[in-house]
Amino acid sequence: MEALTDPEHQDGSPSILSAKRRGLPDALAAALQDLLGNRFSTSLADREHHGRGESYHPTEAPEAVCRALSTEEVADIVRLCALHRTPVVAFGAGTSLEGHVAARRGGVCLDLGGMTRIVAVRPGDLDCTVEAGVTRQQLNAYLRDTGLFFPVDPGSECTIGGMAATRASGTNAVRYGTMRENVLSLTVVLSDGSIVRTSGRARKSAAGYDLTRLFVGSEGTLGIITEVTIRLYGVPETIASAVCAFDDMDSAVAAVTAIIQCGIPLARIEFMDARAILATNRHSGLSYRETPTLFFEFHGSAAAVAEQAELTREMVEEFGGSEFQWASDPDDRARLWRARHNIHYAIAAMRPNSRVWSTDVCVPISALSRCMSETWPDIEAAPFFIATVGHVGDGNFHLGLAIDPTDPAELEVAEHLNVRLVRRAIAMDGTCTGEHGIGYGKAKFMELEHGGGVSVMRAIKRALDPEDILNPGKILPDNRP
Amino acid sequence: MEALTDPEHQDGSPSILSAKRRGLPDALAAALQDLLGNRFSTSLADREHHGRGESYHPTEAPEAVCRALSTEEVADIVRLCALHRTPVVAFGAGTSLEGHVAARRGGVCLDLGGMTRIVAVRPGDLDCTVEAGVTRQQLNAYLRDTGLFFPVDPGSECTIGGMAATRASGTNAVRYGTMRENVLSLTVVLSDGSIVRTSGRARKSAAGYDLTRLFVGSEGTLGIITEVTIRLYGVPETIASAVCAFDDMDSAVAAVTAIIQCGIPLARIEFMDARAILATNRHSGLSYRETPTLFFEFHGSAAAVAEQAELTREMVEEFGGSEFQWASDPDDRARLWRARHNIHYAIAAMRPNSRVWSTDVCVPISALSRCMSETWPDIEAAPFFIATVGHVGDGNFHLGLAIDPTDPAELEVAEHLNVRLVRRAIAMDGTCTGEHGIGYGKAKFMELEHGGGVSVMRAIKRALDPEDILNPGKILPDNRP
Repeated sequence: MEALTDPEHQDGSPSILSAKRRGLPDALAAALQDLLGNRFSTSLADREHHGRGESYHPTEAPEAVCRALSTEEVADIVRLCALHRTPVVAFGAGTSLEGHVAARRGGVCLDLGGMTRIVAVRPGDLDCTVEAGVTRQQLNAYLRDTGLFFPVDPGSECTIGGMAATRASGTNAVRYGTMRENVLSLTVVLSDGSIVRTSGRARKSAAGYDLTRLFVGSEGTLGIITEVTIRLYGVPETIASAVCAFDDMDSAVAAVTAIIQCGIPLARIEFMDARAILATNRHSGLSYRETPTLFFEFHGSAAAVAEQAELTREMVEEFGGSEFQWASDPDDRARLWRARHNIHYAIAAMRPNSRVWSTDVCVPISALSRCMSETWPDIEAAPFFIATVGHVGDGNFHLGLAIDPTDPAELEVAEHLNVRLVRRAIAMDGTCTGEHGIGYGKAKFMELEHGGGVSVMRAIKRALDPEDILNPGKILPDNRP
Repeated sequence: MEALTDPEHQDGSPSILSAKRRGLPDALAAALQDLLGNRFSTSLADREHHGRGESYHPTEAPEAVCRALSTEEVADIVRLCALHRTPVVAFGAGTSLEGHVAARRGGVCLDLGGMTRIVAVRPGDLDCTVEAGVTRQQLNAYLRDTGLFFPVDPGSECTIGGMAATRASGTNAVRYGTMRENVLSLTVVLSDGSIVRTSGRARKSAAGYDLTRLFVGSEGTLGIITEVTIRLYGVPETIASAVCAFDDMDSAVAAVTAIIQCGIPLARIEFMDARAILATNRHSGLSYRETPTLFFEFHGSAAAVAEQAELTREMVEEFGGSEFQWASDPDDRARLWRARHNIHYAIAAMRPNSRVWSTDVCVPISALSRCMSETWPDIEAAPFFIATVGHVGDGNFHLGLAIDPTDPAELEVAEHLNVRLVRRAIAMDGTCTGEHGIGYGKAKFMELEHGGGVSVMRAIKRALDPEDILNPGKILPDNRP
C-alpha cells in the first residue's frame, strides 16, 4: 500500500492516508446519508478519531463514519457496504492496542458506541443482555443496587461489544474467566447483512458448532457483534485486597506460581515491576515502595477470605514477600485498582509526547518465571522507559514501552524486543497475545503460533466473508480470497 | 435411503443396512489393509458393534472398521478415504446417545479406542495431554497419586476424545465447567488428512479464531480429534456429599434454583425423581426413600465445605427438604456417585429387552422449574417407564425412556414427548441438548434452535469438509454442498 504521512492528523501521532482512498462510491455515501442523516460523517476529525486505538500504530482513517443505533441499522449499513464491496470496520470505544480499528483498506467505520441500551438484567439467571456499545463501567454502575457485577475488566473504558470482539480479559480472569467464558450469546450481523443470534441462554449446550466462541475474539472479521449476553456474579460477601512488596521479580513470580499451583481461589493476583510502581505512584499520587509488587484480591464469605488470605500470606512469606498492606475499605480498594487499571496512561505520562507500545504474551504458569526473566535483559537494554505488569495468575504479562512513535530507530528497537518476546512465549507453548488480540500488529506471528491452523482460519474467513469486507487485513495478514 | 432390516444384528436391537452399501472400493480396502493389517476389519460383528451407541437408534454399520494407533495413522486413513470420497466416522467408546456413530452413508468407522497413551501430565500447569482413546476413568486412575483429578464425568466409560467431540459434561459442570471450558488444546486431523494443533497451552489467548472451541462439540464432522490437552484440578482438601429427600419435584427444583441464585459454589447438585431413585435402588442395591431427591457435593477446605453445607442445609429446609443424609466416607461417596452414573443402565434394567431413549435439554435456571413441571404430564401419560434426572445446577435435565425399540407405537409416543420437551426448552431460551449432542437424532431441531445460525454452521462445514466425508449426516441434517 502506498502510504503518505498526513499533515492534518489531530493528536500528534503519525497518520497514514492511502493514495487509494478517494472516498466512498457516491451511491453508497448517498444511501448511508439517507439512512443515518447526521450520524453519517466524513469530517476529517471524525475519520481520524476512528482510525486508531490507544496504541503506537499510526492512524489509518476510514473514508466515513457511520454511527448506528440498532442491530437493524447495523444490518442495513453492512448490506449497503456489501453491495459496493466496501470495507466495514466495527468500532467501540477506540481502546484497542494492535491496530484493530485501522482502516487498512479504507471504507466505512461502523461506530457502535451509541448502542448503549441495557436490554435486560436477569438476576434469577445471573445474566444480562446489553447492546455492544455499553461499557463495563456503565453496566456495573447500572448493576450497583442488584448485588450483581460483571467481573471482566480490561484496563480502559471499553465497550462490552469490543471486549467480546477481542476476547478481552483483565485482572479478574484468574477467578472469573475471560470473555470466552463469560459470553453466553451474541447477536451478530454477518457480511451479507443478515442477523443471527449465536445461541440461547442455557449455561451449557451441545447443540452444534460453538458459534458464540467463534465470534468472540474474531475482531469484527467474521461478523459485527451488536448485542452481548453475559454472565453476572453476586458481589462477594467479603472482599479484601492486599499489596505485598518483593526484593526482586523472580521471588514475586515464584510466589505467584506456587500460589496458583496449590489452587487457592484468588480473585486477582497482579504483578507490577518497580518501574510500573514508579509510574503508578506518580500518575495516581500513591506511595508504594518502588520494587516488584504483587496485588491480591480475595472474594468470598468472611471465613473463606480469611482462610485464603492466610494461606497466601504464608506462601508469600516463604518467597521473601513483605508484610501484607491491606485495603479492606471499599474506597481504598477502588483507588488501588483504579491505579492498576490506569497503568497504560501512567506509562505514557512518564515521557512527554510518547505513545505506549503495549504488548502482552501469555504462557503456561510453569514457564512464567523463565519467560519474564529471559525478557529482562531486553528491557534493561532498551533506550526508553518500559514497565512490566501482569495478570500473572493466568501466566499473562504485558510490557508497556513508552516510545516516540516518530522515531524509526525507537520503533525498530521496540519491534525487535516484541518479536523476541513473542517468539519466547510461543516456544514455551504460550501465545503471542493473552488478551489484546491480533489486529494487524501481531498478524505476522499467526503462522508461527498456529501453523496449519491459519489455513483453517482462512477457510472460515472465506466462508463467512467471501468478499473480505469485514475488517480486512486483520488477524490474517492477507485474507483476500 | 432405502433401508432394510438386517436379520443378523448382534444385540437384539433393530439394524439398518442400506441397499447402497456394497463395501468399500477395492483399492481403498486394499490400501487400508496394507496400512493396518489386522486392525482393518470387515467382519459383521465388528461393523455392527461400531454402528451404534448406547441409545435406541438402530444400528447402522460401517463397511469396515479401522483401528488407529497414532495421529499419523489417523491422518493416513483419512487421506485414503478422502481420495475415494468415502465417509469416515470417528468412534471412541461407543457410548453416544443420539446416533453419532451411525454410518448413515456407509464408509469407514475410525476407532480411536486403541489410542490410550497418556502423553504428559504437568502438575505445575494443572494440565495434561492424552490420546483420544483414554477414558476419564483411566486418566483419573493414572492421576491418583498426583493429588490432581479431571472433573468432567458423563455417565459412562467414555473416551476423552469422544467427550471433547460431543462437548460432554456431567455432574461436576456446575463447579468445574464442561469440555468447553476444560479443553485447552486439541490435535485434529482435517478432512484432507492434514494435522493441526488448535492452540498452545496458555490459559488464555486472544490470538485469532477459537479453533479449540470450534472443534469441541463438532462431533467428528469438521475433523477427527486425536489428542486432547485438558485442565486438571487439585483434589479438594475436603469433600462431603449429602442426600436430601423432598415430598415433591417442585420443591426440590425450587430449592436448587434458590441455591444457584445465591451463588453457593457447590461442586455437584443433582436431581433424581422418585422413579429414578426406584431404578437406582434396584440396580445398585441401595435403599433411598423413593421420592424426589437432591444429591449435593461440596469441595474445598474443611471450613469452606462446612460453610457451604450449612448454607445449603438452611435453604433446603426452607423448601421442605429432609435432613441431610451424609456420605463423607470416600467409599460411601464413590458408591453414591457410581449409582448416579449408572442411571442409564438402571433405567434399562427396569424393563427387559428395552432400550433407553435418553434425551436431555437445558434451560436458564429460572425456567427450570417450569420446564420440568410442564413436562410432567407427558411423563405421567407415557405407556412406558420414564425416569427424570438432572444436572439441575446447570438447568440441565434428562429423561430416560425405557422403550421397546421394535414397537413403532412406542417410538411414536417417545418421539412426540421428545419433540414437545425440546420445543418447550427452546421456547424458554434453552437448548435441545445440554450435553448429549445432536448426532442425527436431534438434527431436526437445529433450525428451530439456531435459525440463521444453521447457515453459518453449514458454511463452516463446507469450508472445512467440502466433500462431506467427515461423519456425514450428523449435526446438520443434509449438509452436502
